[in-house]
Amino acid sequence: MTTDALVLDAAAQDLLFREAHTANTFTDEPVSEEQVKAIYDLIKYGPTAFNQTPLRIVLVRSAEGRERLVQHMSDGNKAKTAAAPLVAILAADNEFHEELPTLFPHFPQAKDVFFSERAVREGAAALNASLQAAYFIIGIRAAGLAAGPMTGFDAEGINKEFFGDGDHSVLTVVNIGKPAEDAFYPRSPRLSYDEVVTTV
Amino acid sequence: MTTDALVLDAAAQDLLFREAHTANTFTDEPVSEEQVKAIYDLIKYGPTAFNQTPLRIVLVRSAEGRERLVQHMSDGNKAKTAAAPLVAILAADNEFHEELPTLFPHFPQAKDVFFSERAVREGAAALNASLQAAYFIIGIRAAGLAAGPMTGFDAEGINKEFFGDGDHSVLTVVNIGKPAEDAFYPRSPRLSYDEVVTTV
Repeated sequence: MTTDALVLDAAAQDLLFREAHTANTFTDEPVSEEQVKAIYDLIKYGPTAFNQTPLRIVLVRSAEGRERLVQHMSDGNKAKTAAAPLVAILAADNEFHEELPTLFPHFPQAKDVFFSERAVREGAAALNASLQAAYFIIGIRAAGLAAGPMTGFDAEGINKEFFGDGDHSVLTVVNIGKPAEDAFYPRSPRLSYDEVVTTV
Repeated sequence: MTTDALVLDAAAQDLLFREAHTANTFTDEPVSEEQVKAIYDLIKYGPTAFNQTPLRIVLVRSAEGRERLVQHMSDGNKAKTAAAPLVAILAADNEFHEELPTLFPHFPQAKDVFFSERAVREGAAALNASLQAAYFIIGIRAAGLAAGPMTGFDAEGINKEFFGDGDHSVLTVVNIGKPAEDAFYPRSPRLSYDEVVTTV
């Protein structure tokens, strides 16, 4: 490890990356509104193109909402989605450009100059909301909680069930809570630096 | 601010999110191989679906490489891409599934069961490499450096110029270095919690 080349302190490195794992089971301890607000108030500053911040979040807190969600999850994800203290649906808003005059005030024309085409918006929203989904996962860990992000679900079903406007695309569904003792699988291998990075 | 609901210390919050900004100009101080290795060795642990980790990184260090890149950047991005101490091309490997028997050893069949179709792979690679791009941006900040991620470029041109195999899709090009004094634009507004988060 070459941690001495980093400025971030070792405890923070461990909390966010080195000791953090995707959780599959959780304790019963609830996740409060205050915690989710603190997470959002931290990660909202993460960068996106044109400051477009297209991520939208649905917190599934009611029993009825949980049922509506679980029916769209893959079989292997149903039980843990039903049992997690809190579940968040993370989606891209494909009509994010409507907010650009507020979010990108020094060039409000960006809304029309760059994003008049729906296909362009969908591509930008997918990329930038995915960046924000990663910031959100980091934020969950920053709150001392564990994240269990999942991509096994009927995306079309979730889009219709929870948005219904045809303008949102679910990216991931994230279980959130304090990890139970058996929450983690063993760490899987990672690619080496030389397998991922080339220099020209 | 509700930072007291977070476990991550305030200095780390500032370094990674609150005081961090996208940089447009940099000092001449070089970014070392050791720094990039430390960044990768931290952020490689960030979660992806099936541990697929499809992000691939090209570090553009040579003058010739820089010229080859700059020609594909949008006019507004050419000068800063030419001047940054280091530039990284972040791309998704659409053939990531070839590594799954190694990366996801407890279910090596995932390669064929879930990812035999190219369109499915491209969707998964785009989402998961974007998550990793965000981890990489966070990692740059963890190294005490500033990131200048850009999406204004001819993607097809960069894919052909730097990969040429038809199997990689550039996501973002990131300038990296110590920020100059005039590096930052003023912080743009962010959406409020209630504009982004709904509860069901």
